[in-house]
Amino acid sequence: MADSTLTPERILEAAEEVLRRFGPAKATVVDVARALGVSHGSVYRHFASKTALREAVADRWLDRVHADLPAVTSGPAPAPERLRSWLHTLHGTKRATALDDPELFATYIVLVGEASTVIAASLDGLVGQLSRIIADGVADGDFAVGDVPRAARAVLHATVRFHDPTHCAQWADPDIERQLDAVCDLLLDGLRPR
Amino acid sequence: MADSTLTPERILEAAEEVLRRFGPAKATVVDVARALGVSHGSVYRHFASKTALREAVADRWLDRVHADLPAVTSGPAPAPERLRSWLHTLHGTKRATALDDPELFATYIVLVGEASTVIAASLDGLVGQLSRIIADGVADGDFAVGDVPRAARAVLHATVRFHDPTHCAQWADPDIERQLDAVCDLLLDGLRPR
Repeated sequence: MADSTLTPERILEAAEEVLRRFGPAKATVVDVARALGVSHGSVYRHFASKTALREAVADRWLDRVHADLPAVTSGPAPAPERLRSWLHTLHGTKRATALDDPELFATYIVLVGEASTVIAASLDGLVGQLSRIIADGVADGDFAVGDVPRAARAVLHATVRFHDPTHCAQWADPDIERQLDAVCDLLLDGLRPR
Repeated sequence: MADSTLTPERILEAAEEVLRRFGPAKATVVDVARALGVSHGSVYRHFASKTALREAVADRWLDRVHADLPAVTSGPAPAPERLRSWLHTLHGTKRATALDDPELFATYIVLVGEASTVIAASLDGLVGQLSRIIADGVADGDFAVGDVPRAARAVLHATVRFHDPTHCAQWADPDIERQLDAVCDLLLDGLRPR
């Protein structure tokens, strides 16, 4: 490949393929450059370091796993229904990704685990979406909440069992969605006015 | 030591010391027997297998970590206050154990992770205690809950971030208790009558 046609997007695609093939411990920038037919210097012109490249791969993967959430966030359903649907969507895409290809999932988990700023930004984005749903519910009188961002973060923390990859071994349990529904019932009741 | 004075309790104490010294991957029944000055056959008269011995160590450790909870469960405080205190006690003892000696904590986590029946029994015990607090709250009119055991399990699931050892890396965060309080607020509001 000519250096002039090399884009960050093509490098990220190649990096994902290399990580899939060699695993997170062995994959190198030289492997990525070789897969693209360019020098490793060409890769470094787009990503300043191996760490920067791995963080970008982690970020891109999280964006993909969370891709269905914004449509739920801004959907037409009443806020309580939307909140439940949002949590089931987050759980469902994470679970499908984990169970579909556990080895690849484990690879991404290693990358994400290394990228604490990527995790923090991703969690802030999720809290932002939850805040919007909760604020809509307050505006409609479906919820009564004093501190919306605090409640949004509490909802995310109260559901880690269903979206944090460290719990992926529990997601094959046929009861897992009923367990999420029981937690949703409690959280939704906690947000409602009295 | 004479075989006649060998008790399960002394074997478990020796096994803990051996696990602390050699780590969970290397510790053997022969090491335990050597520490006690008995043959490994003598150990096997009390624990049918290495697995049975490791499960008993895990069980004993969980009992110790959860030792303060029954007094909170049956305490005099109103149910909402008792529930919050119970969750803070569970988090506090787990966090203190993890931060006090991270290596030993990791050893016990390996043992507990191997012992799925021990985990299930321990979780059932915790759900039983939470059920009792919630049922007291229903009796006093502080809570309105249709299915008490379902709500109790949901409370335990909604707080895994604060008591499941897979989250121990997050427990050093100075904000962790405030995060638990935010989740408690939401759960307690969810249990209250409207």
